[in-house]
Amino acid sequence: MAFIKTPVRGMPEQTPLEMELRNYVFNQIRKVYHSYGYLQIETPAIEHIENLTGDQGGENEKLMFRLLKRGESLQRALKEGGDLSAEGLRFDLTVPMTRFYANNMSDLPIPFKVMQMGPVWRADRPQRGRFRQFVQCDIDILGEATKLAEIELISATVEALSSLGFEDLVVKVNDRRILRAMALFAGFPQDELNDVYILLDKMDKIGFTGLRDELITAGYSHEITDKYLGLFRELPESTLSRSYFENNPEILSDIEIFENLDQILTATRSLTDPEVNIIFDPTLVRGMGYYTGTIFEVSLPGMAGSVAGGGRYDEMIEKYVSQPVPACGFSIGFERIIVLLEEQGLIPGFTDPRTAYLLDKDLEIGQIVELMQEANKRRVNGETIFIAARRRNVRRQIEELEELGYTQFEEISPE
Amino acid sequence: MAFIKTPVRGMPEQTPLEMELRNYVFNQIRKVYHSYGYLQIETPAIEHIENLTGDQGGENEKLMFRLLKRGESLQRALKEGGDLSAEGLRFDLTVPMTRFYANNMSDLPIPFKVMQMGPVWRADRPQRGRFRQFVQCDIDILGEATKLAEIELISATVEALSSLGFEDLVVKVNDRRILRAMALFAGFPQDELNDVYILLDKMDKIGFTGLRDELITAGYSHEITDKYLGLFRELPESTLSRSYFENNPEILSDIEIFENLDQILTATRSLTDPEVNIIFDPTLVRGMGYYTGTIFEVSLPGMAGSVAGGGRYDEMIEKYVSQPVPACGFSIGFERIIVLLEEQGLIPGFTDPRTAYLLDKDLEIGQIVELMQEANKRRVNGETIFIAARRRNVRRQIEELEELGYTQFEEISPE
Repeated sequence: MAFIKTPVRGMPEQTPLEMELRNYVFNQIRKVYHSYGYLQIETPAIEHIENLTGDQGGENEKLMFRLLKRGESLQRALKEGGDLSAEGLRFDLTVPMTRFYANNMSDLPIPFKVMQMGPVWRADRPQRGRFRQFVQCDIDILGEATKLAEIELISATVEALSSLGFEDLVVKVNDRRILRAMALFAGFPQDELNDVYILLDKMDKIGFTGLRDELITAGYSHEITDKYLGLFRELPESTLSRSYFENNPEILSDIEIFENLDQILTATRSLTDPEVNIIFDPTLVRGMGYYTGTIFEVSLPGMAGSVAGGGRYDEMIEKYVSQPVPACGFSIGFERIIVLLEEQGLIPGFTDPRTAYLLDKDLEIGQIVELMQEANKRRVNGETIFIAARRRNVRRQIEELEELGYTQFEEISPE
Repeated sequence: MAFIKTPVRGMPEQTPLEMELRNYVFNQIRKVYHSYGYLQIETPAIEHIENLTGDQGGENEKLMFRLLKRGESLQRALKEGGDLSAEGLRFDLTVPMTRFYANNMSDLPIPFKVMQMGPVWRADRPQRGRFRQFVQCDIDILGEATKLAEIELISATVEALSSLGFEDLVVKVNDRRILRAMALFAGFPQDELNDVYILLDKMDKIGFTGLRDELITAGYSHEITDKYLGLFRELPESTLSRSYFENNPEILSDIEIFENLDQILTATRSLTDPEVNIIFDPTLVRGMGYYTGTIFEVSLPGMAGSVAGGGRYDEMIEKYVSQPVPACGFSIGFERIIVLLEEQGLIPGFTDPRTAYLLDKDLEIGQIVELMQEANKRRVNGETIFIAARRRNVRRQIEELEELGYTQFEEISPE
């Protein structure tokens, strides 16, 4: 079989300059999360099929890469009628993290503040900015039922993003219970709420008129549709309108939900830079079906889609351990961040002084060793010293090194 | 299907304390290699089957995890008689790196000094210290035909290991051409050299007597066997015995090989700590069939096996690009290093001051926000501040946090 030079489709490879940026972003995010006491864990790339098909991964389960059982013959697999795979590549970090938690629970602190940074795989159709291997950066708090979790997750994530140089961040916050109450109040059947959410999720692209058309096309009555859209019109985005709900208790009577949201908004505004815009957005949906309360995402003005998203999922972990475990998490889309930093020119310069020693090919071994000893002394002081034979086309060699941040060149000839 | 709590067999998960150690080792190794100007790259975990079965992976190819083609039905696969997989997980970092080089050659500097740190997968039988997912740390120099490569790779790797606190490192150096000349001189048939090397490789476990028995059992004559062992007896380990070969040119007449090895040994001894023992070892084999010249490995006294290994492989890359590219590399066994650091107690302490604020559940939101603002100020100054609700059993909570390096605890009650 012929050797193939290009990487597998949709699987990016990272060049040296890309890796410098990725390492910088990795370290920056990790530093911020570490300062809040988040504990980093790592789980294997390969996970049991049973765990990857438990329905908590939603649509992502369909995109799983499955592994062939080692040594499995086709004939035998057919005869036994069995599945050809017992394992698959993880499609997110949440499924393995819940397994890790179930497996190590007795040794973990309460609350467990956990950070994960690592690749996940989805057999998706590759497009610009959508890869089949990509990195996620998640923080989660397990075992904290109150707003303490939301407030910290939002401020820590905003700080991580701000530390990378992003300005004018917009944080949208909503609560699944408000989303649900509004849809039920308008008259949508309970078992079709997810379909309604999927349409509502498009609102920032298609607007009110588009949403109205889609709901009618989907077969909902004009009455329900207009009652629903009327609610959003009455609720000005970006303020919580708690008084609106207090005056309309038939929509949602549990006023604690608003008190909770109110405090999350007020606290996170006090804890972040005034330029960060933290708003209540009743149209915010977030895709995953497992959210039970607060949901949130971060976007940048003029940029479609979000750069981070998360929320509370109090009912997921109980399925795997014998007790209820409240949980809340926030995930940064690492690849998205990288693309944006490149587009916005927020790439940090080379911070270490970089010098290249270019050696004449006729140098004696003794002189080479002396130079290497000198280089070692400079390296210990934080300098980067590159040593190589001087090429015939030294001008080209120097240009190549300049692109990699080298500013000093010493051409060494025999003494 | 039932959820499974434990990780897939042989696939380790890393707890928070393990991750602190792993990150420390990662950063330490990367820092040293970076100071020599090695450029980090990353390749996808998934690689074309064609590249993974090109025979350059040797025995490892048999241990490849294959991916099931997405949506492939068993029936159709059988009918078409095709392979069920077009892709597999990489079993080492060398195969993907050569693909990367072939794909990006025109944009890469010459020489290309490259560093890789990442997981690889082998469907091996798991044992203590042998995993089915494990991390490798490789440095390679492509495009440097002379000893400059070997000298730098050895000194950089020794420095990386020394920086982790390892003492009394032993570096064994040999040359595949000497290995070959000695076996041919003794009379072994050319096409059986690899079988002889496999037996020779066991010498440090079975000794001269054991090796003699194994060679005889394998069907070699007493004459050949004793002539071969006689050569090793005459060659005192740890000195190069160049004069021995000069006096016996019928073994190997190409004296440049010894001159080269001599200079590598002398130079690396001058460049490393005097406690590091750098020796010529004519019994050093190194497994991979692709080595063409110098080979080397690092071991620790009293420890079976090696912690790093590598060598020159001048003929591999030419297969994929249209020109000869000399190459030399050194790979650190990351998981081995982690186990040794733990065994030798070389685990660094927590360097950042860690404080926990434990909040009474009746605190007003205003007071919580003030505390969080104070915490943010301390975090900016490099402190780690953990904030959580105070548990009923606060003594247990403090013990848990002490294990994670927290030394200061502030229990906060309503004002």
